[in-house]
Amino acid sequence: MIAELKLDFLQFLETKIKSKEPKNLYDPITYILGLGGKKIRPLLTLMIADSFGEDYVKAMDAALAVEVFHNFTLIHDDIMDDAPLRRGNATVHEKWDVNTGILSGDAMMIMAYQCFDKYEPKTFKQLMLLFSKTALEVCEGQQLDVDFETRNDVTIEEYIKMISLKTSVLIACAMQFGAIIANADSENARKVYEFGLNLGIAFQLQDDYLDTFGNPETFGKQVGGDIIENKKTFLYLTALMNAENSDKLILKELYCSKLKENSNKIDQVMRIFESSGASKATLEEIKNYTHLAFENLKQIDIAPEKKEFLKQFGQNLMERNV
Amino acid sequence: MIAELKLDFLQFLETKIKSKEPKNLYDPITYILGLGGKKIRPLLTLMIADSFGEDYVKAMDAALAVEVFHNFTLIHDDIMDDAPLRRGNATVHEKWDVNTGILSGDAMMIMAYQCFDKYEPKTFKQLMLLFSKTALEVCEGQQLDVDFETRNDVTIEEYIKMISLKTSVLIACAMQFGAIIANADSENARKVYEFGLNLGIAFQLQDDYLDTFGNPETFGKQVGGDIIENKKTFLYLTALMNAENSDKLILKELYCSKLKENSNKIDQVMRIFESSGASKATLEEIKNYTHLAFENLKQIDIAPEKKEFLKQFGQNLMERNV
Repeated sequence: MIAELKLDFLQFLETKIKSKEPKNLYDPITYILGLGGKKIRPLLTLMIADSFGEDYVKAMDAALAVEVFHNFTLIHDDIMDDAPLRRGNATVHEKWDVNTGILSGDAMMIMAYQCFDKYEPKTFKQLMLLFSKTALEVCEGQQLDVDFETRNDVTIEEYIKMISLKTSVLIACAMQFGAIIANADSENARKVYEFGLNLGIAFQLQDDYLDTFGNPETFGKQVGGDIIENKKTFLYLTALMNAENSDKLILKELYCSKLKENSNKIDQVMRIFESSGASKATLEEIKNYTHLAFENLKQIDIAPEKKEFLKQFGQNLMERNV
Repeated sequence: MIAELKLDFLQFLETKIKSKEPKNLYDPITYILGLGGKKIRPLLTLMIADSFGEDYVKAMDAALAVEVFHNFTLIHDDIMDDAPLRRGNATVHEKWDVNTGILSGDAMMIMAYQCFDKYEPKTFKQLMLLFSKTALEVCEGQQLDVDFETRNDVTIEEYIKMISLKTSVLIACAMQFGAIIANADSENARKVYEFGLNLGIAFQLQDDYLDTFGNPETFGKQVGGDIIENKKTFLYLTALMNAENSDKLILKELYCSKLKENSNKIDQVMRIFESSGASKATLEEIKNYTHLAFENLKQIDIAPEKKEFLKQFGQNLMERNV
């Protein structure tokens, strides 16, 4: 079922997003959309629409909007992070240049908005309001992430807020799109959103965990990347709170500079993440948010087999590579 | 009346666009919107709504959307052009940094979309479809402008197409917003759009003309800037077609390199623009497009005094500094 949904979505994407003139504007857009990726967000839109008894085909355009928007954020984030690779291929600003990345990204955001054109005015407006609110929150999350790089007083609460804005709200939005298109009542739509929000936080915390403790062969990104970049993740913030005083000093010291050779730094940080109980606390927190998400799911008025299907998808998402 | 409209709009802008957290995201937005500027586009939205007998206050939100979108393009264009100054002040990426410019610009585009939130679903959708179509065209125009820098076979037709996309469609869109909000019929809305399109082309051609022949004390930008940047404007393309062979060679040669000291280059190019008849031809073309615009205006079903008012505004726009 999931594989079939994904295939349907990819075919839809291919018919809808084609390169045209000017090539230098549109080629980077088909390029990034063709780089693969799990397509978690659009699949969730389709699954939720289906769960409420709607033909998922009706949700294709909204699912595409989310995917196009997500990929726009990747182009601009990669410029800001000066990242050379995305999904194992050259980033847009590396393959073309920074100006192309900026402008193609801008065009992509507009194209995401245009994906809603087929919905009738009332649904159109509902989708648009949620979309703009979410898009702006994603920008705020990205800004907080940038701000945290130069701050030394980030709290765990602030960190959860940041990943919630940067990652979870788009997942929650994608899911609520499905509910809106299926004409679910506002109470159910709200619960779907909460489900997505908690699932998204669990997903991002797990991404952070895997960034340090994942299997290099299956994780898909450089393991230790967050440590190299001195990212103040849940792991780091928890370790900084709970480690022994001598380890706190070492950790702070290690997160003060960027090095060329990082294997010793990564080893030391991993040791402190373990000994301080931060890695265990992170796994615990992932479990908590996943549990919250599944509690939200229980409250939604959909058929039991649809709940089971969504739960299975969430569990598969959480079990990747761990 | 115009001064009053502008004051009303500026007050509206101030109540609607306020900085908030995260400061690094929202401060650059209030900064650029506070730098002044003629506010031509939002004023046109308000004037057209008023011309069709609608309370212009109803058009304030749409007028704001256009102004916010226009300023978003300024932030990103200034990054791409590496421009240090905007309206006599530091550009956003100079005052903050490039990443801030990218992200604040992104947020601004979303905020432009959010300006429509108050319109009822049918109007909302009509405005949104036109807005997204226009926004994407503006990106295409910007891309063509970039592409032209490295092309030596740009035609006058292509140049008009480029400035039409980069400048005119947003003016036409701003004006059609006024017609849509005033519930003008589609035929009138179409004529308003045509009026804006031709007025916009005349406006941009005149901007190009003034860039070379304007009064440095009143033009507001560096006179000769397009020559320094080797911009293939209507002046240049016409001169290249009509100049004597020896001058064609000189012109091509001069447009091959960027220099530190430009006064000799500017003098020579100005001489060729004059002797080839390109400057006269440009003034003629401005007159043609202005005439077309006022012919469109004649066809619109609004009161004679409203037509006169719009014509006066168009004429004032064309007579600035000449």
